[in-house]
Amino acid sequence: MSDFDFHNPRKENDMPQRPHVNRRIVLAARPHGAPTPRDFRLEEAAVPTPVEGQVLLRTLNLSLDPYMRGRMSEGPSYAPPVALGAVMVGGTVNRVVASKHPKFREGDLVLGNAGWQDYAVSDGQDLMPLGDVAHPSYALSVLGMPGFTAYHGLLNIGEPRPGETVVVASASGAVGAVVGQIARLKGARVVGIAGGADKCRYVVGELGFDVCLDRHDPRFAQQLAAACPNGIDVYFENVGGAVFDAVLPLLNNGARVPVCGFIAHYNDKELPPGPDRLPLLMRMLLNKRIRAQGFIILDHYADGFAPFFRDMSAWVATGKVKLREDIVDGLENAPAALMGLLEGKNFGKVVVHVAD
Amino acid sequence: MSDFDFHNPRKENDMPQRPHVNRRIVLAARPHGAPTPRDFRLEEAAVPTPVEGQVLLRTLNLSLDPYMRGRMSEGPSYAPPVALGAVMVGGTVNRVVASKHPKFREGDLVLGNAGWQDYAVSDGQDLMPLGDVAHPSYALSVLGMPGFTAYHGLLNIGEPRPGETVVVASASGAVGAVVGQIARLKGARVVGIAGGADKCRYVVGELGFDVCLDRHDPRFAQQLAAACPNGIDVYFENVGGAVFDAVLPLLNNGARVPVCGFIAHYNDKELPPGPDRLPLLMRMLLNKRIRAQGFIILDHYADGFAPFFRDMSAWVATGKVKLREDIVDGLENAPAALMGLLEGKNFGKVVVHVAD
Repeated sequence: MSDFDFHNPRKENDMPQRPHVNRRIVLAARPHGAPTPRDFRLEEAAVPTPVEGQVLLRTLNLSLDPYMRGRMSEGPSYAPPVALGAVMVGGTVNRVVASKHPKFREGDLVLGNAGWQDYAVSDGQDLMPLGDVAHPSYALSVLGMPGFTAYHGLLNIGEPRPGETVVVASASGAVGAVVGQIARLKGARVVGIAGGADKCRYVVGELGFDVCLDRHDPRFAQQLAAACPNGIDVYFENVGGAVFDAVLPLLNNGARVPVCGFIAHYNDKELPPGPDRLPLLMRMLLNKRIRAQGFIILDHYADGFAPFFRDMSAWVATGKVKLREDIVDGLENAPAALMGLLEGKNFGKVVVHVAD
Repeated sequence: MSDFDFHNPRKENDMPQRPHVNRRIVLAARPHGAPTPRDFRLEEAAVPTPVEGQVLLRTLNLSLDPYMRGRMSEGPSYAPPVALGAVMVGGTVNRVVASKHPKFREGDLVLGNAGWQDYAVSDGQDLMPLGDVAHPSYALSVLGMPGFTAYHGLLNIGEPRPGETVVVASASGAVGAVVGQIARLKGARVVGIAGGADKCRYVVGELGFDVCLDRHDPRFAQQLAAACPNGIDVYFENVGGAVFDAVLPLLNNGARVPVCGFIAHYNDKELPPGPDRLPLLMRMLLNKRIRAQGFIILDHYADGFAPFFRDMSAWVATGKVKLREDIVDGLENAPAALMGLLEGKNFGKVVVHVAD
């Protein structure tokens, strides 16, 4: 457990912003297991000055996502780690506050990658104009990376058919909530898994899942079996751990498992004790003709983002897909919020409100 | 290790055939670990008499295949186990020796499922006429189930592209040999793995693989890495164990792993000791966007057999795909031959010659 209370961070960590100062949170140390406050450092620096061809960005919202834990560690992954002393990475909604770039004007709202800091400069290549959208922070969630992850993984890998059973964990989270709602739109029966009764009530009552189970219940595995009388056809894997263990024996012949993440393991210091279930998993893939397929959403923007954005914009506009945001106030609280996210303390998509 | 020498079985086990007697080998006990001679029993019974609508089949050739080990055990699998006391299952080439079925005549050669016995009756539903093919036993191998397994798994799941690296173990075996030759026909670079220098020479010299490595070599893992300087794009999984462990770190982004079998584990009495690498495997699937997909060839006959048979018949006729048969003489030697197959003592497709 972290020392931090996600929604009530300790006051001594506050460092309110001052004019002309760029607060930035850098990676101070590589975590060994769960991140601690000592792994982050809040620094102050001068606000950078854009040169010709650059814009100066003010961060309004910072997205916090599970993948960030991976970037804090060295070792093979799909993306290089954050260097020690470097600003933590992250998707952001920014306002252009100064522009020496022909395509951007002061006041423009953009989706960017400014990371965990108040200001950043950009040459514009990584920026997407947001125009005057109704809800800019949705570009960090349901209309952005997490929503696209859910859409691509479910529809192009999971391929749910009407009447099939789809199971998704982190069902109130940024990805899981969208997976389940799309699966319902496609006619599947959807069983969500979340941490606690409040989240489960929300997942069924607000998001319209057929069932939601509390993964903390000691009888969780039996409850999952009871909730899936026809087995599981699609399991959208974003947690691993005990949830995957409960899902595995319920997978049907021909099941599809889009492999999106394993938040239960991100803080693991070493592999779990034996026996070694790798051969068991491979044997299950064979006996049940299961397709398990990993994907990294960054690979799919070129071909897949436009159809996703078209469909999802319509679903959000008509209320068919909803998302709850868990707003954390103040850049200085981002470390505690990420630690909380990794422990499942958030309720909805975690967005740090950095400035108006 | 088994008590049996695959190619020189003990003479006291011989029980030559006598007229009007049907020798049949039944499952005497469920193996705990590797099968032993005590798990089989050779019985004699009267030759069955076909009733109206049936044919009497004489077994000429019996196919021995790794899947048979699975059928000897209870527990969940894709097919029910052989009952204790029942005849061991197996694909066969048969001659119709008596027919009360309108579609079959005495003397017809058919592909059947007579199992490990001299004679069987059939209602014809599970029989495929072989006509006057040049090499009837190929219906048990390159033009039958193992060849179809190789073709479907490689082309429809592995999807090798020209210039990619394909790795296949059991490279001189009934499935692996065909996988590698098809992959070469499709323009891939093919690295085979086999047990021993003789098999490796054959795999490169006769089958035309680019490289073949001896899995018994203590430096096998390093040799595999050296033989795959551009990583592995397709790994056709039919062995598991140490071969899979050596392959895993070499898999490329976007690799495909058709999961066909795990002969290294079929005799396992329990899961291997820890640590538990299941989360490691899932993480690799994710980081490298790997698709691992199990398949059971029985699912694909309806749609897939005809195109396979058309392509493979042409490749075999023109010498583009070759197969070595390892002929075992005498039904009574089938148990020893299956035990040997599970230990990799065979060299090529194991076919038991039961009668001319």
